Amino acid sequence: LTTRLPAVGTTVFTRMSMLAAQAGAVNLGQGFPDFGCERSLLAAVNDAMQADFNQYPMMSGAPVLRQAIVAKIAALYGHQYHVDSEITVTAGATQALTTAIFCCVHPGDEVIVIEPVYDSYVPAITLAGGVPVAVEMEVGPAGYTVPWAKVAAAVNGKTRLIIINTPHNPTSTVLRAADMQALADIVRGTDVLILSDEVYEHMVYDGHQHESVSRHPELAARAFVVSSFGKTYHVTGWKIGYVAAPAALMAEFRKVHQYNVFSVNTPMQHGIASYMADPKPYLELPAFYQRKRDLFRDGLNNTRFELLPADGTYFQCVRYDKISTQTEAEFAEWLTTEIKVAAIPVSAFYQQGKESGIVRFCFAKKDETLALALERLGKV
Amino acid sequence: LTTRLPAVGTTVFTRMSMLAAQAGAVNLGQGFPDFGCERSLLAAVNDAMQADFNQYPMMSGAPVLRQAIVAKIAALYGHQYHVDSEITVTAGATQALTTAIFCCVHPGDEVIVIEPVYDSYVPAITLAGGVPVAVEMEVGPAGYTVPWAKVAAAVNGKTRLIIINTPHNPTSTVLRAADMQALADIVRGTDVLILSDEVYEHMVYDGHQHESVSRHPELAARAFVVSSFGKTYHVTGWKIGYVAAPAALMAEFRKVHQYNVFSVNTPMQHGIASYMADPKPYLELPAFYQRKRDLFRDGLNNTRFELLPADGTYFQCVRYDKISTQTEAEFAEWLTTEIKVAAIPVSAFYQQGKESGIVRFCFAKKDETLALALERLGKV
Ligand SMILES: CSCCC(=O)C(=O)O
Ligand SMILES: CSCCC(=O)C(=O)O
Repeated sequence: LTTRLPAVGTTVFTRMSMLAAQAGAVNLGQGFPDFGCERSLLAAVNDAMQADFNQYPMMSGAPVLRQAIVAKIAALYGHQYHVDSEITVTAGATQALTTAIFCCVHPGDEVIVIEPVYDSYVPAITLAGGVPVAVEMEVGPAGYTVPWAKVAAAVNGKTRLIIINTPHNPTSTVLRAADMQALADIVRGTDVLILSDEVYEHMVYDGHQHESVSRHPELAARAFVVSSFGKTYHVTGWKIGYVAAPAALMAEFRKVHQYNVFSVNTPMQHGIASYMADPKPYLELPAFYQRKRDLFRDGLNNTRFELLPADGTYFQCVRYDKISTQTEAEFAEWLTTEIKVAAIPVSAFYQQGKESGIVRFCFAKKDETLALALERLGKV
Repeated sequence: LTTRLPAVGTTVFTRMSMLAAQAGAVNLGQGFPDFGCERSLLAAVNDAMQADFNQYPMMSGAPVLRQAIVAKIAALYGHQYHVDSEITVTAGATQALTTAIFCCVHPGDEVIVIEPVYDSYVPAITLAGGVPVAVEMEVGPAGYTVPWAKVAAAVNGKTRLIIINTPHNPTSTVLRAADMQALADIVRGTDVLILSDEVYEHMVYDGHQHESVSRHPELAARAFVVSSFGKTYHVTGWKIGYVAAPAALMAEFRKVHQYNVFSVNTPMQHGIASYMADPKPYLELPAFYQRKRDLFRDGLNNTRFELLPADGTYFQCVRYDKISTQTEAEFAEWLTTEIKVAAIPVSAFYQQGKESGIVRFCFAKKDETLALALERLGKV
């Protein structure tokens, strides 16, 4: 059997979580909370099961959930998607991203990705027969920025899609209105589409606002916007996400979706829909995580790690040049097995494994977990 | 946006379910039960949620569920799969099938499908860049059979995969040991792989036995075997399935799986695993559905429809030549809107829409529902 994905091994998240478990380390690697979700969310799902919402939902998603998603996007970002033709519920954001790539990337098409890049995009592009074209973010004291002039230079007649991610994993960068303007300038007059991964949309700090593509009509008109409930509601294992896109794009998305998963868990969809009636959980999320971020950053300031800015997501990147000259993978492994705190090497987000002397921690943890990790990191 | 799937519209199941709802028809079209599942299954899922099994499971699936699957296959079919390397839990059987196709079919590879063919296989092959090669089942008074000599003749140096489905949707055909022998003879000495869709494995009647590929070591050594819990446990909307395959095949499957969905709903996996401890629900399923099949067939014997054999699945195919000369799609639509009983045209399972004067009914319904449908069908 010849592999279709020669460059692919087991994801870094799985590998580091396994190493953390073996080593008995505090796992600040893979991004997931170590605390529970709200009991009322569980009750809502249980109610849906008990009410016999257990058979196939509509292929596009349960209408009640699509309505709740449309209402949320309209309230937060001012864009009115059509409930029937412009929203599809997916088996998590990864499935939404891969399906979006599959429905529009033909063999030979180029897809621009911004590195460091989440590890699922490039294999999905490769499987679709597309050609990934990476543009590297620039990193300075003010953190990571997207060099839009380089993105513009990478666009050519073969470019089919540009994939963005804001708030950005792993760098915690939050794109600003000026970034969205620059992107709009690049695609205007072309037939390049946008795929926007916004799964950390409700984790933006210091009063910044999430620049959803759906806030920007010129971009939204050519974009697949992806989000998910796992991060927002502290249930990363539920694997319920969605994509919003103009009807013409959505029609193509659904052709692939219906033969990839057909549809998505019914009681989870109904439970989430009823839980979404109250916007408080996502409106309060920035304050909830900003407090954890600040607690974690304060602690790290007493260590030999050097902090990068963290405007969004539940990740914190740090430089370790004052501590070690190891590669990021070696250093993350050493931290996990010797210091007993797992981290993710940022090099895993570069196709060529670029070394920047930076690793990523996840601070979506109980205060006690963060305190224990900080105590250990303080000894480095 | 140029489509990647020009031949694809909305699936016939969605279209007929929508038409049935509009027409107020009894929906014997799309395959799903209209009765509830066991409450203890719901309780098991709720327990898992309450116990905070809500974060990412392992990419390959929750170990407890993989163990339960391995134990079930060993008990029923005598094949011992390896828990860690040979089972992966999927977001339903459709995702398992599509992912299996993607991980082994390279652009230009040929894939043999048996028509009538479940509607997801061919679009998945097409998306992967493969070439579907259809071999038609033969239909006589004894029902549908697979002409293995024609399958053998279709195999050539480009053949990468043969997809089988037993018990078979839509024809209700149950492959016999002799069929599996014929298939083994065809692939012996080639590097052709097998993908076996066995989602109706627990719906085999009249004392026949399900010839799982995993019962046949020579085939199992080169096969992806797919099943699901939705049909077996009366929860088609849960979308939890699995694939079993030798480790070398599974390694390739997981490369695609981890970038297609990454992983599958955690509390559902734990709930199903604990419910599986009792084999009764699937051991009693044949008797449960055989009774419904007999009830439905007895009723149909008093109509002008002509029954085909139904050895497995929850589907019953009927000829309508004594009633109408319409195409199958026209007749199914007429049945739905005028007689108020929805059916599926079997022509939808042929790439070229072959007409056989046959439609498919689903008998996974309450006895009252079947009685009402039979009353209406009696008037035709
Ligand atoms: C899908 S497992 C990885 C979770 C995640 O998004 C991350 O850690 O970056
Ligand atoms: C995935 S919807 C179709 C259900 C089904 O398998 C069928 O009706 O054949």
